[in-house]
Amino acid sequence: MIRVGVIGYGYWGPNIVRNFQQAEGSLVVAICDKSDKSLRRAHQAYPGVRVSSEADDLLTAVDIDAIAVVTPVWTHFELAKRALENGKHVFVEKPFTSTVAQAEELIELAERKKLKIMVDHTFLFTGAVRRIRQLIDSDTLGHLYYYDSTRVNLGLFQHDVNVIWDLAPHDLSIMDYLCGQEPIAISATGVKHLNTPYENVAYVTVHFEGNFIAHFHLNWLAPVKVRRTLVGGSKKMIVYDDMENSEKVKVYDKGIVQSHDPQRRERMLTGYRNGDMLAPQLEASEALRRMAQEFVSSIMEKRAPLSDGHAGYRVVRLLEGAQRSIEENGRVIDLRESQLPMRGIFAASTVAAAD
Amino acid sequence: MIRVGVIGYGYWGPNIVRNFQQAEGSLVVAICDKSDKSLRRAHQAYPGVRVSSEADDLLTAVDIDAIAVVTPVWTHFELAKRALENGKHVFVEKPFTSTVAQAEELIELAERKKLKIMVDHTFLFTGAVRRIRQLIDSDTLGHLYYYDSTRVNLGLFQHDVNVIWDLAPHDLSIMDYLCGQEPIAISATGVKHLNTPYENVAYVTVHFEGNFIAHFHLNWLAPVKVRRTLVGGSKKMIVYDDMENSEKVKVYDKGIVQSHDPQRRERMLTGYRNGDMLAPQLEASEALRRMAQEFVSSIMEKRAPLSDGHAGYRVVRLLEGAQRSIEENGRVIDLRESQLPMRGIFAASTVAAAD
Amino acid sequence: MIRVGVIGYGYWGPNIVRNFQQAEGSLVVAICDKSDKSLRRAHQAYPGVRVSSEADDLLTAVDIDAIAVVTPVWTHFELAKRALENGKHVFVEKPFTSTVAQAEELIELAERKKLKIMVDHTFLFTGAVRRIRQLIDSDTLGHLYYYDSTRVNLGLFQHDVNVIWDLAPHDLSIMDYLCGQEPIAISATGVKHLNTPYENVAYVTVHFEGNFIAHFHLNWLAPVKVRRTLVGGSKKMIVYDDMENSEKVKVYDKGIVQSHDPQRRERMLTGYRNGDMLAPQLEASEALRRMAQEFVSSIMEKRAPLSDGHAGYRVVRLLEGAQRSIEENGRVIDLRESQLPMRGIFAASTVAAAD
Amino acid sequence: MIRVGVIGYGYWGPNIVRNFQQAEGSLVVAICDKSDKSLRRAHQAYPGVRVSSEADDLLTAVDIDAIAVVTPVWTHFELAKRALENGKHVFVEKPFTSTVAQAEELIELAERKKLKIMVDHTFLFTGAVRRIRQLIDSDTLGHLYYYDSTRVNLGLFQHDVNVIWDLAPHDLSIMDYLCGQEPIAISATGVKHLNTPYENVAYVTVHFEGNFIAHFHLNWLAPVKVRRTLVGGSKKMIVYDDMENSEKVKVYDKGIVQSHDPQRRERMLTGYRNGDMLAPQLEASEALRRMAQEFVSSIMEKRAPLSDGHAGYRVVRLLEGAQRSIEENGRVIDLRESQLPMRGIFAASTVAAAD
Repeated sequence: MIRVGVIGYGYWGPNIVRNFQQAEGSLVVAICDKSDKSLRRAHQAYPGVRVSSEADDLLTAVDIDAIAVVTPVWTHFELAKRALENGKHVFVEKPFTSTVAQAEELIELAERKKLKIMVDHTFLFTGAVRRIRQLIDSDTLGHLYYYDSTRVNLGLFQHDVNVIWDLAPHDLSIMDYLCGQEPIAISATGVKHLNTPYENVAYVTVHFEGNFIAHFHLNWLAPVKVRRTLVGGSKKMIVYDDMENSEKVKVYDKGIVQSHDPQRRERMLTGYRNGDMLAPQLEASEALRRMAQEFVSSIMEKRAPLSDGHAGYRVVRLLEGAQRSIEENGRVIDLRESQLPMRGIFAASTVAAAD
Repeated sequence: MIRVGVIGYGYWGPNIVRNFQQAEGSLVVAICDKSDKSLRRAHQAYPGVRVSSEADDLLTAVDIDAIAVVTPVWTHFELAKRALENGKHVFVEKPFTSTVAQAEELIELAERKKLKIMVDHTFLFTGAVRRIRQLIDSDTLGHLYYYDSTRVNLGLFQHDVNVIWDLAPHDLSIMDYLCGQEPIAISATGVKHLNTPYENVAYVTVHFEGNFIAHFHLNWLAPVKVRRTLVGGSKKMIVYDDMENSEKVKVYDKGIVQSHDPQRRERMLTGYRNGDMLAPQLEASEALRRMAQEFVSSIMEKRAPLSDGHAGYRVVRLLEGAQRSIEENGRVIDLRESQLPMRGIFAASTVAAAD
Repeated sequence: MIRVGVIGYGYWGPNIVRNFQQAEGSLVVAICDKSDKSLRRAHQAYPGVRVSSEADDLLTAVDIDAIAVVTPVWTHFELAKRALENGKHVFVEKPFTSTVAQAEELIELAERKKLKIMVDHTFLFTGAVRRIRQLIDSDTLGHLYYYDSTRVNLGLFQHDVNVIWDLAPHDLSIMDYLCGQEPIAISATGVKHLNTPYENVAYVTVHFEGNFIAHFHLNWLAPVKVRRTLVGGSKKMIVYDDMENSEKVKVYDKGIVQSHDPQRRERMLTGYRNGDMLAPQLEASEALRRMAQEFVSSIMEKRAPLSDGHAGYRVVRLLEGAQRSIEENGRVIDLRESQLPMRGIFAASTVAAAD
Repeated sequence: MIRVGVIGYGYWGPNIVRNFQQAEGSLVVAICDKSDKSLRRAHQAYPGVRVSSEADDLLTAVDIDAIAVVTPVWTHFELAKRALENGKHVFVEKPFTSTVAQAEELIELAERKKLKIMVDHTFLFTGAVRRIRQLIDSDTLGHLYYYDSTRVNLGLFQHDVNVIWDLAPHDLSIMDYLCGQEPIAISATGVKHLNTPYENVAYVTVHFEGNFIAHFHLNWLAPVKVRRTLVGGSKKMIVYDDMENSEKVKVYDKGIVQSHDPQRRERMLTGYRNGDMLAPQLEASEALRRMAQEFVSSIMEKRAPLSDGHAGYRVVRLLEGAQRSIEENGRVIDLRESQLPMRGIFAASTVAAAD
């Protein structure tokens, strides 16, 4: 039985507690939050779980095997580091850390202590993303051409981060998981409105070897909620619309076909290929539940979890690159300058199977 | 009566002929095309109109007052220049020219000869765009925050231009007309697939003074047809979806409201404002018909037409900038380096009323 | 403080308990269910509430002021009757009773004992339905022409009732609340599939004085979930689509206009009126919470609740009529044969204000 | 070469002329209309075709092989009868005739004279309906459960017929073609608004042997345009939405599965079957063109066309039955009372292949 202590019981914490409580093989034994009100809510919902306003009570508790860090991003590094130092596995809310350097240090520390890190990339555990991964793995889509993501809505302006750090971790982690290619450069642009210190509209472009490109539209100030991703492949193309009640994933048998112009052999003619559209039935089980189970299982089976520290690192590396690009007016940031041997890390972790 | 000669009777030419035939005050008297098959089609449809395979027959005809150039973009400059030199007004298919220098030369020539230039920015004459312009003019939207446009579909790969030169003229001309702000810089990125020489997926960002930004997603290789624009303003926001059968324009009374945190006066709190959505009834008349009429009227009333040479120039300037940015790997191109006194031109033409 | 006992803790009961627990002025003190498993769930969620497998424990408890009956429809009458006989107010899950005679008896009993009856017509408390009622009350729609409702999905075949008794209470109660007109006749048709004893597809038509008509399409065997109602009025028309995430209610300024044919004065010409569409922002508060509060308030304020016994009666009368029509192969059933003085009852209860 | 004379050049006539002009093997040689304005339009569009205001000029012309009757329904019988009497094949706009007796007389006359009758049931020639027919023919849907059709919009009130005679011929002919079952009874209800003499909202139910049912919702006074049909089968279910730009036909692998309750063997449990949704690519060719071709081919190949007189008869029989039901306040009208040996006619014509 993995005994879990959860630090942070604000907006997202209750979901984490509920799911670790329900997962097989885990039990939440302590909840920590700075706010008395949150602690009272926690106690009311889980009378048998001890509560505390001091993170140290959990980080040093001898009866706790794993710490879930569900706090603002700028606190992740300190809390996760102390958890690892105290011999505890860590589950960290996305994004993993504030900097690449912090991510590297945590990964290195966990490997040294033989502990697991898992990052809360929830969407990787949805039926929709899992199904798209299967379609890519089985070469149904063929060679990937582009990944185009839009995540916009009328959202609360965060007080500590811009719209990229708030919304893009979802999409970057999905893209990282689905496309399995190593980015070589990133650029971003954004604007601030209403005299706020952080960008509330941003566009991020990730460049890859070959002719694959990924693009992300992020916006806290949109009149409608859009969560739509297009994935173009040489064989098939996908529309993944998370706002659909059903049929979230649509697979189009469409594309371009080329042939030599019979009049002028040197000229290529392009034509359409218009086939059927298939919306596969998706697994209905709750993503959070599945994610909590993956963390527990990875500890018990002594293997890396699906969205491990390296996955978290890769997302933070993109966030940091996007941030730098925005600060340098959209300059294209070369990601190959990074210090860690990225290729190796990347290759290893994308091979990990989902189940 | 304005007597019109139409050069080019391929895909778009028949629409131009039909509309100049139906407009009040104009008459198509000659049609030119290199292809015999096209000329036969023209003759069959309009037995009373003379046809020719030689542009010169029209460019030098004494009974022709205006030339409509409906040919590939690389031929626009030569044909329009000779029409102007021969004392004829010109109507030019979008995009106006292949280069900014060409656009400048034509504008200068037309002004010297006191002739009119109109560019086929058809969307400016749709009920949807006209209505959005009214909403902006009446300050219903307030201060503009962003303009976000998506125009993607499974489209034929053009043989002579990339997806930006093919699709973006629509959106750039709409933005130019609606937003009435002078762009200061542009950047673009794109990729080529299927061994074609031109980009088939591209993203273009236009930067303005202040905190207004415009972004364009263009794609010939998308499984679904999307033509959707979001316009964010401080008072209201718009979704303009050209694929809707009705309700193409939706005006959302939504936004962010700010107030001082009562606990900590120095901190701003942001909250939502969620009001009604209004889809105004749009004019139903045909855009092309209205555009043809505008050209004829501008000649008769000796005034600049709505989408005049300057409007065409501004769009070409953005296309050229985007092209240069793509070639320089996404470098942000400063548009203020341009030679023409843009501010003056711009201010003059955006003041022009639509009707 | 109104002390509530809840009988039935299956699918819907937990929602009722939660809402009476949270409403101001009420407290759930006891929960009853035949199933041990349900009682354990109840105890776990509400350790301070006493549980019992015997309804009598609640019906006769001296510390209980009101009984919520959340059990299968065929048990409603007995439980509600005994609650009233024991001096307790009753809240009854929809549909109110199995027969009109039962509804009449309960209403008469409650009036004699000066107790309140409320029926769980939840949709009356949604922001959407409340807003439509306001639009009708303010004569924004004008004279009503038709009410057309579709409620279909792939649903579980119930074991004790047909699709009309399962789904139509929602729509009949909404129509009753919105339209405020007395039905004079009803007809229904339906079919059974898969060798089941109850109709799983049905169409119900309700006839009114004048030219108003209401129609209901109910289906447990549809591939898509549709919950859409059209309301046509002489001034405006409404589409109420409960499957929309936002913009559930759309008000169309559309209609037909008539004029005399100038050629032949005796002939009427009809033309369209096509105006704007408005989607009003709706209240976001939870319908169930609002409904629980209405029951509690009606007891404390000694007034009839919004969806009182008479409202329940009127819905049962329509269900019973539809049932009879189906059994008689679609014969139109005259509702004016009913024994109760309907007009009086109806007039009284539709006047009741929502808040 | 089949030489065609077209009587009626109002709203629909020009489409018929254009398609018989373009079909292989036919040629329009004469056009007739009472209105001078229409004749001038006809002459302008087709200078080589002779025009006349007298139907007799066409009906008796020796150089005409077939007459297309594109006039108001009350004139169909007389014109078609005289065409047949003069030895000409007839193509008749839907609905075929005003009464069943007229349809019978025309069929009998054509058979005697060995001439062809085709009724303009255009939708039978669309890619969508053809594809659904293939799915039914191949037993992909399994046993049919229901056919539910909605055709509503803000439409012009016709001066000579009610909404059933105006809109239902489309849906009744589609259902007749797709379902291939003999109706045994029909009922209908409708209302009139705005002091017009004809119903503008109507509901029609068609009853079949076994547990198959068809239902039609028709409305000229709806704020939105809906053209949606659900077809439920034991194996798969279809949504056919003619307002979709693409994906008009969606095939759902959904349904109900039954099993014996392990606790109580005599009780059946029902559960869902939720599989993939497939939207097949549809043929893009124009329905009208294909229909014109079918008429010409049927004459040349001396076989019955797809939508022959019997198909027209079956639709008129349903219209007449619906009309009678409305007049008798919704009484269920037994269709087996009809005089013609329906079963034979029906069986023969539904066997006819589409191509």
